[in-house]
Amino acid sequence: MSPRVVLATRNAHKVVEVRRILSESGLDIDLVGLDAFPDAPDVAETGLTFEENALLKARTIAAATGLAAIADDSGLTVDVLGGMPGIFSARWAGQHGDDAANLRLVLAQIADIADVDRGAAFVCAAAVARPGADEHVVRGELRGRLTREPRGTNGFGYDPIFVPDAETRTTAEMEPHEKDAISHRGVAFRALAQHLGASLP
Amino acid sequence: MSPRVVLATRNAHKVVEVRRILSESGLDIDLVGLDAFPDAPDVAETGLTFEENALLKARTIAAATGLAAIADDSGLTVDVLGGMPGIFSARWAGQHGDDAANLRLVLAQIADIADVDRGAAFVCAAAVARPGADEHVVRGELRGRLTREPRGTNGFGYDPIFVPDAETRTTAEMEPHEKDAISHRGVAFRALAQHLGASLP
Repeated sequence: MSPRVVLATRNAHKVVEVRRILSESGLDIDLVGLDAFPDAPDVAETGLTFEENALLKARTIAAATGLAAIADDSGLTVDVLGGMPGIFSARWAGQHGDDAANLRLVLAQIADIADVDRGAAFVCAAAVARPGADEHVVRGELRGRLTREPRGTNGFGYDPIFVPDAETRTTAEMEPHEKDAISHRGVAFRALAQHLGASLP
Repeated sequence: MSPRVVLATRNAHKVVEVRRILSESGLDIDLVGLDAFPDAPDVAETGLTFEENALLKARTIAAATGLAAIADDSGLTVDVLGGMPGIFSARWAGQHGDDAANLRLVLAQIADIADVDRGAAFVCAAAVARPGADEHVVRGELRGRLTREPRGTNGFGYDPIFVPDAETRTTAEMEPHEKDAISHRGVAFRALAQHLGASLP
């Protein structure tokens, strides 16, 4: 039986994406989201970096479930916004998880900014923690630039307004496997899969 | 007759505050806001710094009116938000000038951030431009920290959530002359008054 690993998120989109990336890495695990653990604590993301928050979530959920836990803290960093929304990406418009409001707000904030100054990056910190074992955290980044209007329906979060370098499509217009091949989350979780594969039973 | 100087803003609060600061500097000018020039162009704030935007506004309005023009670009820089709202302070919640929405959004974005990490500063760049003459820009800053709830009714913008270092009151709870003595705008416009006084007829 494949070892069970918890992904410390209640975001169903994220579970699908991470499961796809890890499975294509050849990692044989049974990955479940927090929906399978209704009593798991909500983790306040009090860290000041993606890495701190990813470790905080993995560590807390590993302790609460007794299982190996992996966690992702990721976001959009906009150059002209001083690296924000950054760790606040999921709650940028004030309420957690309102993707449409979050991306509309970023576009409104930088409406006057010229195309040449609309550089941005997707960043992902991926962490693994196991009760009584070492923790690991790795980072993936994808550089690109912001559009002026949302385009595409794949993916989630800020995908509809982000065009990777050397691309003309937003990540929401790319096929999932194309996005995974270059994405911040793809890079981070493929690196994490090495740590995970080496240490599971 | 006192020389007429235009303050390049349609924000009535800002006209009152700058007029008060300059008048206490002993500068004998007739300061008017853009309400006196209904045909003056709206200046898109396309700069990436407070200084660029202040110069842009002063320069454009001096050219449009033929008068000496002064301008202020100011905002709140929050440490944990990478220096934002910064130059986007007036439109942080998406619509220009909605002070209440802007400060509510900042509080919501950093709701999980501990008191010790809630450092911030008010920053003001003040610029002067005259048709066919040199331009000047100066900067004032006031360091402090953010509250968790708005307090006080004086001032405008983010005053209700900002407590200066060595103070317990927000700048919205301070008397106008107390605030002017230490504020970013007070520091910047007192410095600008030197340039202005030396060069007006």
